[in-house]
Amino acid sequence: MAQEKFKREAVVLDTSLFVNPAVRESFGRTPTEALESFLSLALQVPTLEFYMPPSIFEELLNFIEPEKISGDLLIVLNQKPPKKYELSCPAFLLYELIEDIRERVNKGLRVAEKAVRGVTRIGEEEVIKDLRRKYREALREGIIDSKEDVDLILLARELDAMLITADQGIIKWAEKLGIKWLLPSKFKEYLLSSIKRDHLLAEHLKQ
Amino acid sequence: MAQEKFKREAVVLDTSLFVNPAVRESFGRTPTEALESFLSLALQVPTLEFYMPPSIFEELLNFIEPEKISGDLLIVLNQKPPKKYELSCPAFLLYELIEDIRERVNKGLRVAEKAVRGVTRIGEEEVIKDLRRKYREALREGIIDSKEDVDLILLARELDAMLITADQGIIKWAEKLGIKWLLPSKFKEYLLSSIKRDHLLAEHLKQ
Repeated sequence: MAQEKFKREAVVLDTSLFVNPAVRESFGRTPTEALESFLSLALQVPTLEFYMPPSIFEELLNFIEPEKISGDLLIVLNQKPPKKYELSCPAFLLYELIEDIRERVNKGLRVAEKAVRGVTRIGEEEVIKDLRRKYREALREGIIDSKEDVDLILLARELDAMLITADQGIIKWAEKLGIKWLLPSKFKEYLLSSIKRDHLLAEHLKQ
Repeated sequence: MAQEKFKREAVVLDTSLFVNPAVRESFGRTPTEALESFLSLALQVPTLEFYMPPSIFEELLNFIEPEKISGDLLIVLNQKPPKKYELSCPAFLLYELIEDIRERVNKGLRVAEKAVRGVTRIGEEEVIKDLRRKYREALREGIIDSKEDVDLILLARELDAMLITADQGIIKWAEKLGIKWLLPSKFKEYLLSSIKRDHLLAEHLKQ
């Protein structure tokens, strides 16, 4: 009976939670501090299971000092890749992805043409700088564009988990696929409330 | 018993069969002639069922004179869209698509930068012409890049059909998804042999 009441919910974490300064603020001054403080809170929530795809963890490793992270990491933050050869995705999403990319590719060409036409007026170096920014904006922002992004989405789908991310492209896909998501800026509150709930639950079960 | 032996096979047609001059040659001088000559051959092969997604047929309409096409079209060439809200695609393909696009997007930026750096040497108009060609090459060729492409692939998958296309991007996906495909240049031969086989089969059934 007690077991039934303790059905664990899965949560999939993106790196932004620890890496993005504005977001991790509530957890710590550095990515390492933020990860440590997350681990100590996470340990207190037996009803939640935390996951991160290994590809995302690899990214995180570029920002933290691994030797300063406690062994709790190994039991609190499960590193699990999605079952990419077993999962499937609805075919209509292919249409949306391909159409989205098509529009972006066209926009990228317009950005490039405009850059070429600006050279004599603005100068090569200035134009290149501007081109890079605008091209990136046109082709990368608000779209899933890496295997790490796909890992996050598929893992959350596989585990029916809540996805903690600030990436607009990923959030858009989470919406399409019916995946719960939460902005990292809300995540500490979410953890603290979960700790409170788990305490109440434990009290209740003792009675 | 006879019915069992006449199990019909599905064939999905791309427009290139009728539109690409090098390919349609064996069928006729114009797209309209090619379509008419296909229809008269197709009528003679009761074991094959021919399909075209409506989106592809729309494209074809830009090239033919509809009033010159016989009503056989309506019974020989089934216009059927894929069941896009029921079909699914293996998730690992998402990875391949996203990685492919990522590389192309990077290449597109390099093409654009090179164009910008060529303006003072080569001149704006020449650079723009060159940019358009190279950008297109980098971002469009050998990849599925329109909903019409997706329609073809999904319809062939749904019907377990053979796909007749010369599009390298579509062929690549057919290979990934286990879809039979044939180059349009081989298609007339394929039809003629099918007519022969169906005659033999009919003889055999009469005995």
